[in-house]
Amino acid sequence: MSNKYIDFETLKFMLYEVHGLEKMLDKKRFEDYDKEAIDLFIESIKEFSDKELYPVFKEMDENPAYYKDGKIHVHEKVKTLMYKGGEMGIISASFDYKDGGMQMPLLAHTAAMFILEAANNHLPGYAGLTQGAAELIIHFADEDLNKKYVPNMLSGKWGGTMCLTEPQAGSSLSDITTKATRTKNGYFNISGQKIFISAGDNHFTENVVHLLLARIEGAPAGTKGISLFIVPKNRPNDTESLDFNDVNTIGDFQKMGQKGYCTSHLSFGDNNDCRAWLVGEENKGLYYMFLMMNAARIAVGRGASAIATAAYHASLNYANERPQGRKLSASGKKNPDEKPSLIIEHPDVRRMLLLQKSMSEGSMSLVFLAAKYYDLENTAETKEEKYKYKTLLDMIIPVAKTYPSEAGNISVSNGIQVLGGYGFCSDFILQQYYRDIRISSIYEGTTGIQSQDLLGRKITMENGKGLELLSTEIIKSISKANKDDDLKIYASMLSEKIDLTQKVLKKLMPLALKGDYERFLADASVFMEFFSLIIISWSWLDIGIVAKNHLEKNNFDQKLLKGKLEAMKYFFLYELPKTTGLAEILMNLSDVTIKKEEDYLS
Amino acid sequence: MSNKYIDFETLKFMLYEVHGLEKMLDKKRFEDYDKEAIDLFIESIKEFSDKELYPVFKEMDENPAYYKDGKIHVHEKVKTLMYKGGEMGIISASFDYKDGGMQMPLLAHTAAMFILEAANNHLPGYAGLTQGAAELIIHFADEDLNKKYVPNMLSGKWGGTMCLTEPQAGSSLSDITTKATRTKNGYFNISGQKIFISAGDNHFTENVVHLLLARIEGAPAGTKGISLFIVPKNRPNDTESLDFNDVNTIGDFQKMGQKGYCTSHLSFGDNNDCRAWLVGEENKGLYYMFLMMNAARIAVGRGASAIATAAYHASLNYANERPQGRKLSASGKKNPDEKPSLIIEHPDVRRMLLLQKSMSEGSMSLVFLAAKYYDLENTAETKEEKYKYKTLLDMIIPVAKTYPSEAGNISVSNGIQVLGGYGFCSDFILQQYYRDIRISSIYEGTTGIQSQDLLGRKITMENGKGLELLSTEIIKSISKANKDDDLKIYASMLSEKIDLTQKVLKKLMPLALKGDYERFLADASVFMEFFSLIIISWSWLDIGIVAKNHLEKNNFDQKLLKGKLEAMKYFFLYELPKTTGLAEILMNLSDVTIKKEEDYLS
Repeated sequence: MSNKYIDFETLKFMLYEVHGLEKMLDKKRFEDYDKEAIDLFIESIKEFSDKELYPVFKEMDENPAYYKDGKIHVHEKVKTLMYKGGEMGIISASFDYKDGGMQMPLLAHTAAMFILEAANNHLPGYAGLTQGAAELIIHFADEDLNKKYVPNMLSGKWGGTMCLTEPQAGSSLSDITTKATRTKNGYFNISGQKIFISAGDNHFTENVVHLLLARIEGAPAGTKGISLFIVPKNRPNDTESLDFNDVNTIGDFQKMGQKGYCTSHLSFGDNNDCRAWLVGEENKGLYYMFLMMNAARIAVGRGASAIATAAYHASLNYANERPQGRKLSASGKKNPDEKPSLIIEHPDVRRMLLLQKSMSEGSMSLVFLAAKYYDLENTAETKEEKYKYKTLLDMIIPVAKTYPSEAGNISVSNGIQVLGGYGFCSDFILQQYYRDIRISSIYEGTTGIQSQDLLGRKITMENGKGLELLSTEIIKSISKANKDDDLKIYASMLSEKIDLTQKVLKKLMPLALKGDYERFLADASVFMEFFSLIIISWSWLDIGIVAKNHLEKNNFDQKLLKGKLEAMKYFFLYELPKTTGLAEILMNLSDVTIKKEEDYLS
Repeated sequence: MSNKYIDFETLKFMLYEVHGLEKMLDKKRFEDYDKEAIDLFIESIKEFSDKELYPVFKEMDENPAYYKDGKIHVHEKVKTLMYKGGEMGIISASFDYKDGGMQMPLLAHTAAMFILEAANNHLPGYAGLTQGAAELIIHFADEDLNKKYVPNMLSGKWGGTMCLTEPQAGSSLSDITTKATRTKNGYFNISGQKIFISAGDNHFTENVVHLLLARIEGAPAGTKGISLFIVPKNRPNDTESLDFNDVNTIGDFQKMGQKGYCTSHLSFGDNNDCRAWLVGEENKGLYYMFLMMNAARIAVGRGASAIATAAYHASLNYANERPQGRKLSASGKKNPDEKPSLIIEHPDVRRMLLLQKSMSEGSMSLVFLAAKYYDLENTAETKEEKYKYKTLLDMIIPVAKTYPSEAGNISVSNGIQVLGGYGFCSDFILQQYYRDIRISSIYEGTTGIQSQDLLGRKITMENGKGLELLSTEIIKSISKANKDDDLKIYASMLSEKIDLTQKVLKKLMPLALKGDYERFLADASVFMEFFSLIIISWSWLDIGIVAKNHLEKNNFDQKLLKGKLEAMKYFFLYELPKTTGLAEILMNLSDVTIKKEEDYLS
């Protein structure tokens, strides 16, 4: 069995043909790069993944990271990822030159991370969190702190984390209680505990730099009293060596999946010697953290798409090798003397594979679109342009986080089903993807939280300005597709769904206007499902336009292009119609999920 | 945290109020039983589950059954289940007195197995397969074989299995190659291998009796040349002791879930000394096996409903204990000085709990309905009545197997989501249910196979006679509900969906009539999803009618009744509307999943 976990040609097709990475390289910020340089970068990442990450994927599941004697023990490839990967630029690629970065488009970096995650989703998080932590320091901390921490983080010498969650608070950040006490020496003393800290500790990197939310004594209650701190595990002293900073690993969380990606329980200041340095201004911690959250959310969507992509290739490969059963003849019978068919010939198996393909590649494209918007915002030359791309990015982020995660669960489950009984067996890799991907709907804001963000903030922001901008983009695609005889039917299907969205919102908005936010948001998760199907159909229409264009010019791998068009059709015929039922549910405006006086559930 | 895995009152409500078990006891066959006797039986099962099964549930996951030195090593509770459980009647309850059974309604036995499976789904399969194997012997084997095997199986002293799958054949039984060679001594010699044999071996029961499909030398190719044999691991000799029968365990399958329920790889006749006794007539093996398959399929649906039920109670319990976040005020803001709410107060959490409740209890009710039809067929006094219930049973079996399995995956996934990050952690039980339940869509005919059975055989049988009978039953419920002011809206929703089914079939049937079976069945799985939602809505309408009736009479636990009505509403408002989108998909009559000349997937 081959070990293909990604179709490199599809990845490049998405990057260059669908999302126009080459055009992006014309921007001044990226003037040092041409297509060859980017290709070299992602090819080196592919080689690195083939050689270092994929071979230990199963082994990391079978030998989970674990806590023992105050330490988390992780697979030695964490070191390879951080040091070698760091050298290759997996942490620093998209950062500014001035901060020690490579100033590459985020789109290119996203492709690189996608490959790493498809190869082995237990590893890239160590680098991803380091990147996120470094980004917070670069954006909001003073120069001294930057100098002290950033270079070692970008090189992979030091790891980084985000410390938000506390045992009593869960997703509710307004309830965090970790305490920061001011000292006269310019730093704070920290005491408190944090849980679910991904990559929270390891015995390979020399240091771990925690970006931690805490409450300064006397700060206001709730989210307005939260500040952001740098809390290194070991603090750099004047002699350029490190002193232990009283950051204690007191346990870990064993999980159903992503077992090689450690999840730690940390305790700060057990011996009253945990020093922390304020990032930016007091009480603005949550604001800073949330700016970073956008990148983290794209990263979760990216990881989920990557896992679903790898699972798709594992099922596809099996279906192309496994003979079983026979096709029905015109009499509706099967002839036992005939040679068994390969299972890929059975329509139900093809349906499952097309489901996997259309969901995982549609997700990939949406994640790339988010990265592209980020680059366009970042390189915008006018205020209007910056606003436009910032707004478009804000609009799609909850979807780019949620759809790949939710559809990913379904997609990988169908991947198991393609293998039948073998799919459930540990000797086959599908079951690992199924367990690994399940966390994606929870990480960095659950599906429920993303859905409330989408409907409660994004759809309503500035009187619907965001939705208007997004609709304009979708309508541009529809207009293009309308000019193609084969595509115009899909263009009109999508166009109808834009109207349906308006109809749904017309029904829902009065609830918000009259202040009944509880009911307005009660079905936010259903709205997310509805809206995601429309957004991914748009992604597929864009892919279809490019595929059709190339097909006519006969200048590209024909099989790949035709495959994209089939997957597009599948999505429009098997997924998009589900919006009809979902719209019905949304327009019911039921109050069945609202708690009444007397509760039959408690 | 409490360890509730089932709501015993709900179980009894379903049994007695919804499915009229008490009325069933009026039948002559069950004349020795009254409600108290049945209650005593299921209460003893509940106590047994509480004491013996539930406490080792997690431990069986953490210490899987394993193969070593030619043996499968299983948890010692397998012995308890077989011996103690056997004594209590978990194998023999529904069998005739004359065969050593207790002649109880299958409905009562189904409730008992449901409890066992909710408590610990790794164990009941050992008894369930023994029951199935014994049933095959009783129905089709001669008296000598009956005497030799059945009593020890019903008591739980000997286990039983079904040996169908072979490495090269998978679900395609026409390709099995295990060879039976006739001898002059009345028995056959067997050689061949079988895989995926659940409960295939254990070191506690004194013997394992395999019911095995094999091909007698010279038999016709395909499914018409398959015979059924009894192949004991150890054969009883004339001195009433046992001789090893050359049935060799050569490996096992380690799995993602149900780890305590062993899955074996068996090799028969490695030393040319594996004797087998023909059951019934030659070449009729598949026919016999498929009669048994009905019970096996109900059992899979039952197990899946039971797991989903247990998972629902685990989430519900968590949601009732965990404080987190605050309710939105009328201004759309949250007040951080307020005490955090319990998460059960958040509409999105309630939505997930209602999803779990409505799916798992709806599934339970459908499984009970299948058992009830079985009892009604079994006790019918006229040919017409027997035909009617046999046909109704045939109609709902693919749904009773598939819906609980597929919806079960979704339901348990929502259960994880209720817990957030903890749901993914090994210390919480939800992730185990998620892994365990995933096999249900594969066992005893995958969802794809069930769907082809539903659309390709059941819907079309006798020119739609089965569907007609089933519709008549559904319309009876609709008429009843129409008389109630609160229920009539749901009655009319269901009624519309009956019409929609006709519309869908009108579009699909011409494909079958013109011999294009491949396209007719291409979307069978989508049809299954569509049809299941209608069937489960019918189940909920029936539950609603009973609940409403009792509510008016004020003679029952009011909170339970109101909870049922809320879950019914949820199903009608959040699940049934999905059929609109699914009907659109079905009526597209797309050929996108049919393999064309040039294949973009291979």
